[in-house]
Amino acid sequence: MVHDTRLTQELRSLLFDQRVATLGSLNQDGTPMVSMVPFAISPVDPCLVIHVSGLAAHTANLLARPAVSLLVMRPELPGEPVHALSRATLEGRATLLVRDSASWSTCRASYLARFPEAEPMTELGDFMFIAIHLQGARQIAGFGSARSISTHELAQLLTDGNQTPSSF
Amino acid sequence: MVHDTRLTQELRSLLFDQRVATLGSLNQDGTPMVSMVPFAISPVDPCLVIHVSGLAAHTANLLARPAVSLLVMRPELPGEPVHALSRATLEGRATLLVRDSASWSTCRASYLARFPEAEPMTELGDFMFIAIHLQGARQIAGFGSARSISTHELAQLLTDGNQTPSSF
Repeated sequence: MVHDTRLTQELRSLLFDQRVATLGSLNQDGTPMVSMVPFAISPVDPCLVIHVSGLAAHTANLLARPAVSLLVMRPELPGEPVHALSRATLEGRATLLVRDSASWSTCRASYLARFPEAEPMTELGDFMFIAIHLQGARQIAGFGSARSISTHELAQLLTDGNQTPSSF
Repeated sequence: MVHDTRLTQELRSLLFDQRVATLGSLNQDGTPMVSMVPFAISPVDPCLVIHVSGLAAHTANLLARPAVSLLVMRPELPGEPVHALSRATLEGRATLLVRDSASWSTCRASYLARFPEAEPMTELGDFMFIAIHLQGARQIAGFGSARSISTHELAQLLTDGNQTPSSF
């Protein structure tokens, strides 16, 4: 279990240290679209939380076709090799949170704990909170260190992570 | 044109400084998948070049459905706000390069100029070079600095960039 423990620790650090992901959504014509999304982690009903504008193309995409994919990765360092960068591709399902519902309030609190500067935007009518419940992941933590992760393990990791200080 | 010039310079720097992109491809079931790809730029028949394993899911995806989307972005900095990070979503079309063809040789040279450490992998039979010709882009260079970019302008930028030292 030593191997798994190291990979699990790295995945937890990755998700709790990095604040932006790349969101993969589907355009109306069925082609893929990638965009940057700042994200937070809600440990209650464990999910990722994003805050998007009703004017943005990815918002229309994920409301119409909620199966999404997200990449979280360590940043490249100038002069350092990039092929073995630690990263994870997360598969998830996007759900619009109804303003002032209990889930909305919990997710909003998680988001603003990470991004207090976004508070004024949450007052704007055309911005919305979206919960992304994870359904599986593929983690690559270097050459020869790749594995698939179950929905259950991901949920556990999101819940535990908020109680465990990151090692980074 | 001052505004456009600043954005064009930033886009050129972004593409020539960053070495990894997030690739958005389509799974067989029509859902999106995102993955990390190191990329190089070929100024001849201007395109992005990636080098992928025949065993990887994204390779099967882009060979079957060549319309792809790529995100290139500046890395987040610890403690700094992330919402205005400079980035570009590039729309492109993937083409498998035939081993030992003229295009393959040119693209391979561009790739190895950026990633000399990848040379041993190019000898493996199950790795292949893919050219991605860009068909448009959406650049976001901060709050209120967003624009669409044409195929022609992108091609010009990829060609010019190899002759213009980056300002970063």
